Amino acid sequence: MSARSGHTAVMGTGNWGTTFAMVLADAGSDVRMWGRRAEVVDEITTRHRNTEYLPGVELPAGVSASTDAAEVLDGAATVVLVVPSQTLRENLGGWTSSLAADALLVSLMKGVELGTHLRMSEVVAEVTGAGPERIAVVSGPNLATEIAARQPTATVVACADHDRAVAFAHDCSTSYFRPYTQDDVVGVELGGAVKNVIALAVGMAEGMGMGDNTRASIITRGLAETARLAAALGADVTTVSGLAGMGDLVATCASPLSRNRTFGHNLGQGMTVEEVVAVTKQTAEGVKSCRSILELAQSAGVDMPITQAVATVVHDGVPAAEMVRVILSRARKHEQS
Amino acid sequence: MSARSGHTAVMGTGNWGTTFAMVLADAGSDVRMWGRRAEVVDEITTRHRNTEYLPGVELPAGVSASTDAAEVLDGAATVVLVVPSQTLRENLGGWTSSLAADALLVSLMKGVELGTHLRMSEVVAEVTGAGPERIAVVSGPNLATEIAARQPTATVVACADHDRAVAFAHDCSTSYFRPYTQDDVVGVELGGAVKNVIALAVGMAEGMGMGDNTRASIITRGLAETARLAAALGADVTTVSGLAGMGDLVATCASPLSRNRTFGHNLGQGMTVEEVVAVTKQTAEGVKSCRSILELAQSAGVDMPITQAVATVVHDGVPAAEMVRVILSRARKHEQS
Repeated sequence: MSARSGHTAVMGTGNWGTTFAMVLADAGSDVRMWGRRAEVVDEITTRHRNTEYLPGVELPAGVSASTDAAEVLDGAATVVLVVPSQTLRENLGGWTSSLAADALLVSLMKGVELGTHLRMSEVVAEVTGAGPERIAVVSGPNLATEIAARQPTATVVACADHDRAVAFAHDCSTSYFRPYTQDDVVGVELGGAVKNVIALAVGMAEGMGMGDNTRASIITRGLAETARLAAALGADVTTVSGLAGMGDLVATCASPLSRNRTFGHNLGQGMTVEEVVAVTKQTAEGVKSCRSILELAQSAGVDMPITQAVATVVHDGVPAAEMVRVILSRARKHEQS
Repeated sequence: MSARSGHTAVMGTGNWGTTFAMVLADAGSDVRMWGRRAEVVDEITTRHRNTEYLPGVELPAGVSASTDAAEVLDGAATVVLVVPSQTLRENLGGWTSSLAADALLVSLMKGVELGTHLRMSEVVAEVTGAGPERIAVVSGPNLATEIAARQPTATVVACADHDRAVAFAHDCSTSYFRPYTQDDVVGVELGGAVKNVIALAVGMAEGMGMGDNTRASIITRGLAETARLAAALGADVTTVSGLAGMGDLVATCASPLSRNRTFGHNLGQGMTVEEVVAVTKQTAEGVKSCRSILELAQSAGVDMPITQAVATVVHDGVPAAEMVRVILSRARKHEQS
């Protein structure tokens, strides 16, 4: 099978997937989306809307959707993967036989797989057998709601193959969406994955009534531990200081809409993890991946005190207030130590 | 003259100076403040309040104030300097003969002197003749209002002499105020000075109605140009990623109280610099120092596009909207270029 028609498949119809489909269509691509639920894909195809995940936004006419993954993937030159991180392996397993042999596989997901500690691009490589030249990731300060309103936004497209990064950056460039290219896939993915955990910690501090000084300290120290992990895993630490690391973290921690931050806020106000899940009807990505990230750090010999504190709250049931106090009172004499 | 009594002099009774005096007194120091205005110093000494600059806060009993600088400085083991940056040289010139020969001189100021392009610690060295082992700077994510409410806050105390940094960090440590030490005075000062300029740019974008994605991008790219300047001037770039660089910038850009951000916001809404000054009755530090920082960058051969854009708006009268568009549309293919 080859990428005959050259359309772009977007696998996932959530908030970010639908927004990115809009960007791709605005940039001139023929976009076909796959979604699990018939009512969602029908609404996208017939009414050019996804009311549940992207209310108030009209999608470009060039976007259609289907529940039939094989049909969506048939002939796709580019396949954008944007499903919940922990479901990627299972979903992708069912799609592999439908992928064109030369298709570019683009991950929009942020997380580290439970059990294996693999980043999303590593799961893609393992399941599909694709080489690094066929796998790209997109990450940055990309609150979907603002992009859907076509507000100016920068992002990072990373691929080990520079030419393919440039080509895909071109495919998603619009007047409001500006991709920078990168070859440091590891740094870009780690920035996005650890961000969710730091946003949980920031939310916890906010929930305890702490202000911008404390929040800025947690963001700063959180990014420092992300950089330590990135360095230990062979990434470029300057990537962590860039749009896909610092930029994404700052945007997330500024947004009242962040699921991770909101989840942390509820924990900081004294709720248990179970109580937050019961109220919000969902689990934040950082809740799932903090343990994987911590185990990854431990196997690399890296100290990540904020991630460890979050994992202790989330998995060991220690009250958030106690863990925030531990983070803030940690004895550290010299800043770089 | 020597530092007999060992008290701490705080030279300045503004918002930050008064707050830091409170921290020092809470940490156990005997604090004497100098201020220009009789009504302010009288209120501090007799009522333990500074209603104009720190409303609603009661100062510890150990804080007194006077308009007589020589009296305040007499015997002070530590002298904290916290006057407007561009007035430091003139103020300090009048104080030098009253300084104990071994007193530690601590700058709480952020800025670069107009004309000379000197950082505040360099002005202190030039005017007093003190060596680097006697000059320290304090900077970090330190919104004064939160510290005055005794909310948990981290900061950085930097001095070329490690032991003196540690000693002064001890002198200002409280349960809510936690200093880390640093020896990179240049990096700490540049982080604080450029922050004011980046906060102006962030404010401009906000004033134009742009959201968190754009704001996070400007913060990220702004910190990247700060790091380039710091590296060119011999500082450690990791300092810029720390509490006195990134931390301070993130806290400032989150705070509705930041003068620089508010000034930029008004510019972004279409006001001229003169109109903003007329309305707010004050000029933000970044407005004054952006040209010095830009000239410093040019002499070091460093590209600082955001600082340049801010300087163009502030000094050449180009509308903020036009400059923000220039920043956002700047052609950059690879993130690290």
